[in-house]
Amino acid sequence: MSRFIVGVMGGGETAAAEHCKMAYHLGKLIAQKNWVLLNGGRPAGVMEASARGAKDNGGLTIGILPDRDSRFSSEYIDIAIATGMGDGRNYINILSSHVIVALPGRAGTISEIALALKNNKNVILLGFDTGSLFNIYQQSGLLHPVSTPEEAICVIDNIRKKQ
Amino acid sequence: MSRFIVGVMGGGETAAAEHCKMAYHLGKLIAQKNWVLLNGGRPAGVMEASARGAKDNGGLTIGILPDRDSRFSSEYIDIAIATGMGDGRNYINILSSHVIVALPGRAGTISEIALALKNNKNVILLGFDTGSLFNIYQQSGLLHPVSTPEEAICVIDNIRKKQ
Amino acid sequence: MSRFIVGVMGGGETAAAEHCKMAYHLGKLIAQKNWVLLNGGRPAGVMEASARGAKDNGGLTIGILPDRDSRFSSEYIDIAIATGMGDGRNYINILSSHVIVALPGRAGTISEIALALKNNKNVILLGFDTGSLFNIYQQSGLLHPVSTPEEAICVIDNIRKKQ
Amino acid sequence: MSRFIVGVMGGGETAAAEHCKMAYHLGKLIAQKNWVLLNGGRPAGVMEASARGAKDNGGLTIGILPDRDSRFSSEYIDIAIATGMGDGRNYINILSSHVIVALPGRAGTISEIALALKNNKNVILLGFDTGSLFNIYQQSGLLHPVSTPEEAICVIDNIRKKQ
Repeated sequence: MSRFIVGVMGGGETAAAEHCKMAYHLGKLIAQKNWVLLNGGRPAGVMEASARGAKDNGGLTIGILPDRDSRFSSEYIDIAIATGMGDGRNYINILSSHVIVALPGRAGTISEIALALKNNKNVILLGFDTGSLFNIYQQSGLLHPVSTPEEAICVIDNIRKKQ
Repeated sequence: MSRFIVGVMGGGETAAAEHCKMAYHLGKLIAQKNWVLLNGGRPAGVMEASARGAKDNGGLTIGILPDRDSRFSSEYIDIAIATGMGDGRNYINILSSHVIVALPGRAGTISEIALALKNNKNVILLGFDTGSLFNIYQQSGLLHPVSTPEEAICVIDNIRKKQ
Repeated sequence: MSRFIVGVMGGGETAAAEHCKMAYHLGKLIAQKNWVLLNGGRPAGVMEASARGAKDNGGLTIGILPDRDSRFSSEYIDIAIATGMGDGRNYINILSSHVIVALPGRAGTISEIALALKNNKNVILLGFDTGSLFNIYQQSGLLHPVSTPEEAICVIDNIRKKQ
Repeated sequence: MSRFIVGVMGGGETAAAEHCKMAYHLGKLIAQKNWVLLNGGRPAGVMEASARGAKDNGGLTIGILPDRDSRFSSEYIDIAIATGMGDGRNYINILSSHVIVALPGRAGTISEIALALKNNKNVILLGFDTGSLFNIYQQSGLLHPVSTPEEAICVIDNIRKKQ
């Protein structure tokens, strides 16, 4: 059976230092669980930080690139998937992840949260307050707000037990 | 030069009757302007209602389908584009529209608003309160909340003058 | 019901003058039949020539662009669909066309013939000798070699009668 | 830097036993080189055989699935990328592979060879006679006909030295 993949989404160039730090720690915990980390693959923000956290701890990292050429990937990505589809690749990020953790981000990250919920995937909001927009999905149990990477891992463990 | 395309997004099977009525009226106004109406092409909710409003008034309608087969399109769609990409087609909806009008919807519609803003497209929110999530884009002038189809048309006219 | 779409494929920048002339004539015949012409939308070769032939004769033309921006389309395209997917859009060309006519081309055109046959679409080879590679599909009746645009139209008429 | 990926293409359900055997051996050799094997991910034909050959020899395997759900992947796939794009995913197979080996196949495989050549990728034809259709690319040095998996590996080694 193919390996369990956790998608980590969040801000790119505009990401705050505290969120990159949290992403690094999350990547570390994912690697320690022996799960695969998947993100958007670019060398920026939450993507790069989470991949670095996983790589520094022996993890395997997958980057789903918007570009046509895998040379544009972050140096912390093991497997670069070049889609040539721009932001169209956000849909592939979501479908390929068994569960998604979303740190604070802008429209790109919000599109991924929305596509995930539309496709019935569990989304863990790590320090990301999305207001009331997704309330209906919180009621249906797909949306999980948490404050720390440790809590995110705990929620994923619970989701896996139910599956 | 290719024709001016207005993308109309919003709820599918879950759309309320009042929003479908508003979508029908918007489709009528778009047709009267001789603009092309583009939507997700399925025979449901805001999509079907907006296409019907345009067709009843001599407009041209384009449906970007998630399906592999154009036979799944609404009967009010003139040109059915079969993408075979599921919700991945939301990205094509956005890129192909010169401006987007979003009526109330769930995660699918929210993903389209987000992808539009990410790709620097003007988004008119027609009776759709998205809370504070997209505030940063309202400040940059890309997000336009309005209450009536007439106001939506007026905003589009103003955007066209600037382009 | 949505309109009948004929996809016209063939060489871009490398297309020979005689093939562009044939594409122009084919576009004219498609328009006279009141069918919609669909192609790759770029201002080059068989694409541009077929769209011009249709436009000069009152037809409607759809261009499925590889680009993120519809401004890159040929001036003879009425409806520009911006996919942002590069050659990935070849799949959409095929799925959206009810039947495909392929004039001589290189790898791009061959990929479209192959994707069409894979997806059970009829392909008319107009002056394009593809050797023995697709023999199996000729035996199954999906591949139709012809020499003139008039013959291509005749084959399409026959296909429509059977559907 | 991300790892070197060899794409292995070829027939699915219709693949002959001898080609599956050759695919298994190729997968083994790719794994022994410590390269990553990428294919279309489905549990059939050349795809499954090549992945099994790699897995039996400690390799890492990536499957780019046409499906929306990674549960449809072959059991010999480590990392299942669910694209939800049907045959549209053939484009991603090509862009993500640094070099492609094509065993005999039908239209799907031919579309991948064509997309690869269009995007300037080296294609090794392993026991696959494509006739004269791609002659122009053989002259430009992108197309490499070979008879055995060992020769394929040798060609890849030479390509890597030049890059």
